[in-house]
Amino acid sequence: MGVNKIGPVTTATSRSRLSPDERRTQLLDLGVSLLATRSLDELTIDVLAEEAGISRGLLYHYFGNKHDFREAVVRRAVDDLVAQTAPPEGGEPLERLLASIAAYVDYVVANYQGYVSIVKGAAGGTESMRDLYEEARSALTDRIFTEDAQGDLIPDTPAARLMVRAWSAMAEELVLTWVADPAGVTREQLLEAMTASLPALVDFLH
Amino acid sequence: MGVNKIGPVTTATSRSRLSPDERRTQLLDLGVSLLATRSLDELTIDVLAEEAGISRGLLYHYFGNKHDFREAVVRRAVDDLVAQTAPPEGGEPLERLLASIAAYVDYVVANYQGYVSIVKGAAGGTESMRDLYEEARSALTDRIFTEDAQGDLIPDTPAARLMVRAWSAMAEELVLTWVADPAGVTREQLLEAMTASLPALVDFLH
Repeated sequence: MGVNKIGPVTTATSRSRLSPDERRTQLLDLGVSLLATRSLDELTIDVLAEEAGISRGLLYHYFGNKHDFREAVVRRAVDDLVAQTAPPEGGEPLERLLASIAAYVDYVVANYQGYVSIVKGAAGGTESMRDLYEEARSALTDRIFTEDAQGDLIPDTPAARLMVRAWSAMAEELVLTWVADPAGVTREQLLEAMTASLPALVDFLH
Repeated sequence: MGVNKIGPVTTATSRSRLSPDERRTQLLDLGVSLLATRSLDELTIDVLAEEAGISRGLLYHYFGNKHDFREAVVRRAVDDLVAQTAPPEGGEPLERLLASIAAYVDYVVANYQGYVSIVKGAAGGTESMRDLYEEARSALTDRIFTEDAQGDLIPDTPAARLMVRAWSAMAEELVLTWVADPAGVTREQLLEAMTASLPALVDFLH
């Protein structure tokens, strides 16, 4: 959650203390935080250079080229999304699902511009970007089965996995449309609908 | 439904009988039928020229350039999809919805390669392609409210429209995934789940 709070990293002191890997990670975090209010197309090496207060040349040293830079930022954003939406350790299955969905909605709200551009760009973008998006969706949906290993909420069947995947497409569209125009729906109503709809939809196929 | 049944249009007789508009329409229909088993990327002027038995030059005369050609084919495919999935005139609201959904599933099955490529390409493709895809989705979801003008099935509220849009994303993902791997789910189970889930999901927001 601290990811979006790092500021420009311009002091010689902070620079000299970090290993190259740490430095790269810090720059990626900055890239992810910039992506919150920018589309992927708007996130350029130039923008990062200015925000980080370092030269473009150094950024090319860290990230190779524009494409690799964006891919690295999106990979880190996906890792953040998966980490931030992990359900809490204990509790009832439906409560844990609700908590995870709430974290997802909050993530999308906080990172709207970048998230939209990743979703919209994933399909028609480069193959590596599509793969990253697929990886994220699989991680989020597969987790539902590993977190609910006893099948208390949803039985682990091929039909259930088919429906969970479809539900995740619904959930994504619902949140993205809701952020753009809430249509009188409160956050609580949205979370309740997203949570309750998952077992209900799976039931329709059983 | 005759769209996919026209054959190559190679005879001088058939050519001379058609007006330029009819001829263009016929070529578009051929393009749409070729798209059933090809991705949009694979649908080239060369492929159409070979299938139609006419010169590339003549096709450029009809369609301007590769981009305009693909856009015209997708526009016609969208028109076909909307026309073929129109619900029957009479009957109960839920039966009419089921019939419309059945036609949608059959359309996707019959036109899988092209449909997948349009869906996948819509997001990251050109702006005009995105617009066409959005137009199709809006036409299909708005129709639910015009066809159910009394609100027998779904009340026409902003929240319901939000959920219908999310449901359509679910329905699309469900069908595309099911065609690739049915996961033991029959066509009838799929249609039932898609149909019953629409009012159920809307209920979750009311």
